[in-house]
Amino acid sequence: MGNINKPPFDDALTPWDLWYKDLEPQQLGNIYKIQRVLYSGESEYQRIDVFEHGWLGRMLVLYGAVMMTERDEFIYHEMITHPALFVHPDPRRVLVIGGGDGCTLREVLRHPSVTLARQVEIDGQVVEVAREWLSEVNGNSFDDPRVDLVIDDANTFLDGDDGTYDVVLSDCSDPLGPAEVLFEKDFFEKVLDRLGDHGIFAAQTESPMFYPDQVREIHRRLHQVFPVVRMYLAHIPTYPGAMYSFAFCSRGLDPVGDFHHERVSDLGLETKYYNADLHGSCFVLPTCARELTCERPTD
Amino acid sequence: MGNINKPPFDDALTPWDLWYKDLEPQQLGNIYKIQRVLYSGESEYQRIDVFEHGWLGRMLVLYGAVMMTERDEFIYHEMITHPALFVHPDPRRVLVIGGGDGCTLREVLRHPSVTLARQVEIDGQVVEVAREWLSEVNGNSFDDPRVDLVIDDANTFLDGDDGTYDVVLSDCSDPLGPAEVLFEKDFFEKVLDRLGDHGIFAAQTESPMFYPDQVREIHRRLHQVFPVVRMYLAHIPTYPGAMYSFAFCSRGLDPVGDFHHERVSDLGLETKYYNADLHGSCFVLPTCARELTCERPTD
Repeated sequence: MGNINKPPFDDALTPWDLWYKDLEPQQLGNIYKIQRVLYSGESEYQRIDVFEHGWLGRMLVLYGAVMMTERDEFIYHEMITHPALFVHPDPRRVLVIGGGDGCTLREVLRHPSVTLARQVEIDGQVVEVAREWLSEVNGNSFDDPRVDLVIDDANTFLDGDDGTYDVVLSDCSDPLGPAEVLFEKDFFEKVLDRLGDHGIFAAQTESPMFYPDQVREIHRRLHQVFPVVRMYLAHIPTYPGAMYSFAFCSRGLDPVGDFHHERVSDLGLETKYYNADLHGSCFVLPTCARELTCERPTD
Repeated sequence: MGNINKPPFDDALTPWDLWYKDLEPQQLGNIYKIQRVLYSGESEYQRIDVFEHGWLGRMLVLYGAVMMTERDEFIYHEMITHPALFVHPDPRRVLVIGGGDGCTLREVLRHPSVTLARQVEIDGQVVEVAREWLSEVNGNSFDDPRVDLVIDDANTFLDGDDGTYDVVLSDCSDPLGPAEVLFEKDFFEKVLDRLGDHGIFAAQTESPMFYPDQVREIHRRLHQVFPVVRMYLAHIPTYPGAMYSFAFCSRGLDPVGDFHHERVSDLGLETKYYNADLHGSCFVLPTCARELTCERPTD
């Protein structure tokens, strides 16, 4: 389990006044009062922290940046998963890239058609931390018999993988350090190679307000590789810039035209952010985000 | 102009390291490195600050909370204005409640049909500060001959006002202190009284993620008064909780059914967030926000 740092205090010894800042290079960011440090460690790839916040609940922090909080993680995890899985006509084989906290896996496993949920996460220590500290959040998703957990660099893994997937979800961290390669054209080509006929690739593509140049470049590369690429947005309070972008990419399926509203009610999933109406509207972009895509306005 | 506090330093004396925290009661918030304090003062109602941030530009801060920043203010101001003004068939007389920074006025005045833009702001000192420090942001909107600026409590003002309005926009601050009354049922009834046949009332209604109980209560009261009430959302990076809500209320006009797409292209407004496609989609709510309204799901 590596170097767990058990908090050197008893609850009775509080109050303490510890604030964690998640800063952006623009000299702004989010700040959180931390009630308890549940875990602090250093893996081969990054620093890993699990904090307890009075309102957000448990927070997973990698390399100093918030990855998820118990209160708002449903937004990101529902939105990276369900638009793709409700458009694919029969999603059976799903590959999750990154996603070490296990929450994307949790959402994938809610689709009964899924027979294989393979997760390729580079940092085994993140998975161990998630198993220990976030099992109530991820619903012990790693223990589902449909899960095949692979600890490897997804870019290397795909070189040796000859399986095909119905849906590939890129739930990776920011494009700096080990995750940078997961935003390269070469990697997108490897993903396309592994997609079946109705294959869909959905990826987190960063914050249009705070990182417009980065978002534009990611979407430009996706357009060079995938026949269909559409940006969609969600509101994520603990990610920078309020507006967070994703890409829906496919061999041909259209995220809106090939979506059948009744699929959602037929499955009867209870979702807290995603719903069948929102499925279409999240692809309608504010002008400032649309300008970062290669999409044409309809008005 | 009150007690202007000229920064006691010369640019040459920097670096200094001043951080401004905009905290919520949940013990979290936003943090900004401030390059210069352009203005600090205390009015009869509140503390007023204008900061210069390296990336956000000028920031107006009232009672310690960010009201607007040069970089992202277009989102809030376009979204409080254009959904209402593009649904009303011929918006001539517009009343703005609050909005002392002058930016909502700027957006209202971009509609050539408008012949009267009356603004009722309680705090004259905010308007003076905006005239001095934010004129490039608000485009000197207060100087437009169509503007009638009234320094008064909007609640009191409406008691003595017998004009009717095509559109009323409530661009007020949070429901604490002087703005609290502007979220009361009594006030909403006064607004309805002043609306013409096709009248529309649009209001900011706080953050569904951070203040769900408050949002639910505001929308419940609106439903008690207005025949049509619909929540819509925008992503505002410098407001709490990523997801920010507004209400579109009317005597009968529906924000989507009575919207004509070509109105937007015919006027040829260049907007950075709002667009004709977004007009419909911003009314489609994530489940967690829909649950705070009295609206029924369609799926």
